[in-house]
Amino acid sequence: MHTDVPGAESSLRVACVQMAPRIGDVESNVARSIEFVEQAVCDGAELVVLPELCNTGYAFETREEASNLAEEVPGGPATRAWTAAAAKHAITIVAGITERSGDAIHNSAVVIGPTGHVGTYRKNHLWNRETLFFERGDLGVPVFRTGAGRIAVAISYDIWFPETFRLAALQGADLVCVPANWVPMPSQPEEAMAMANVLAMSGAHCNAMFVACADRVGRERGETFIGRSVIVNQAGWPVAGPASPDREEVVLADLNLSDARRKRALNEFNQLLRDRRTDVYGEMLGSDTRPGWY
Amino acid sequence: MHTDVPGAESSLRVACVQMAPRIGDVESNVARSIEFVEQAVCDGAELVVLPELCNTGYAFETREEASNLAEEVPGGPATRAWTAAAAKHAITIVAGITERSGDAIHNSAVVIGPTGHVGTYRKNHLWNRETLFFERGDLGVPVFRTGAGRIAVAISYDIWFPETFRLAALQGADLVCVPANWVPMPSQPEEAMAMANVLAMSGAHCNAMFVACADRVGRERGETFIGRSVIVNQAGWPVAGPASPDREEVVLADLNLSDARRKRALNEFNQLLRDRRTDVYGEMLGSDTRPGWY
Repeated sequence: MHTDVPGAESSLRVACVQMAPRIGDVESNVARSIEFVEQAVCDGAELVVLPELCNTGYAFETREEASNLAEEVPGGPATRAWTAAAAKHAITIVAGITERSGDAIHNSAVVIGPTGHVGTYRKNHLWNRETLFFERGDLGVPVFRTGAGRIAVAISYDIWFPETFRLAALQGADLVCVPANWVPMPSQPEEAMAMANVLAMSGAHCNAMFVACADRVGRERGETFIGRSVIVNQAGWPVAGPASPDREEVVLADLNLSDARRKRALNEFNQLLRDRRTDVYGEMLGSDTRPGWY
Repeated sequence: MHTDVPGAESSLRVACVQMAPRIGDVESNVARSIEFVEQAVCDGAELVVLPELCNTGYAFETREEASNLAEEVPGGPATRAWTAAAAKHAITIVAGITERSGDAIHNSAVVIGPTGHVGTYRKNHLWNRETLFFERGDLGVPVFRTGAGRIAVAISYDIWFPETFRLAALQGADLVCVPANWVPMPSQPEEAMAMANVLAMSGAHCNAMFVACADRVGRERGETFIGRSVIVNQAGWPVAGPASPDREEVVLADLNLSDARRKRALNEFNQLLRDRRTDVYGEMLGSDTRPGWY
């Protein structure tokens, strides 16, 4: 069982749900996500991660379609269903959701604990045609204090930016949950590990944090998704998955989140976050004002 | 043949030398490094990368030992030998070197072109007992304009910090050369890819840059090095190596450095460096003043 006492030893059973939402069928998608949550709970899961945009599907044709399918947080039907499940089973859920907020639509994730909505993350780095439908994230990279540890969220393409992991780690995250709808990368060799998995491993290792990725599978309006959901430990090694590229399934792992703090010390001289040379990095990494070579 | 016209198509043959220097035997180490350079030239190499500290070996017992073995740049014997070889064969050499500069000793790399010493990089992130002998790098993350493209250098543990790759990319690097003396990481699964290789792939992919790692092999005063030299393309995939964990060898690849600029565009909306959310990253990444969770 997990504990929320910071620094205490804890074993947390984490489940990443790899499923195939259907575009536009919110009711069925939410019901199916709840079935997977129940299955994960039967397997002892205390934290369940669901894929990106899993209430609506991904491949919108127009902004209007996305807007009509989106829901407000925390009042909408998917959030309410997940909140009920989290309360019923005393678990934490992190779920990708198409969110409407006033006139804006966001590619978001809700973090929900046993007592309700903990917080929302909004995808900072939009991929491809998402740019046509969504506003960019405006909530930074928040770290949520939950009964399942200190959790940050990154959505799919966000992990292409090592800054995402770094900001999470610098704010104390033990675990980064990654709802995803990964698509094939150009030039990916067929037999190689998915680059998304490589990036999850790298982000986990360099920051001594756990990373739990719940990707989707299936095909939607010509777009294929690659599955390969994976849970990576704080040393950067997969401890569950990568899952199949094309089947719905749940990957499960027991994580001792305390190791995310302890294992940052690599030896008697080195500690991954303290070794950063902020004096060298200067302002360049966070600044728009320096000339860049693009 | 390569060309130094920026933006032009170019094919550059790059060699990474995986060798086993012997601690303290500078004359023999330099002679051996030249043999490998000659061998790489016979195979058509136009840029040759040599391992970290390859003039002296790695496992110093005292600072005095390191200081006595170190040499000044560019006047010392190793730099002179590499300069002569670069001139003779009209190539570029990037070589790890134990450098003495006044009272300071640095874990450095020299960049040498056909007309002589181009510049020096000094390791920013010191590993383990290096802290006892070396000063930290004080030259930033420079990008050198050479006949073999725009080259940045990172040494071994430097690539544990994604900021290193990012700073190189933001300053226009086409290729990051990585002289290394990688040691086994705790908890590395025996059958898995070396984490150092994962980090090279991730750094290359996220920045659309080539990465060429020349690691050492062998054992020295109880320390084992892991080899696995690798050349990674701008998409993040190994195109030569990983080499063996324990044999001296040369890995070779032909790189079109122009792809480091062209392939940053992933589709009609996304470009890896432009997609960065510097407004979100803010000052945290380059600042010492924010409270961090270590």
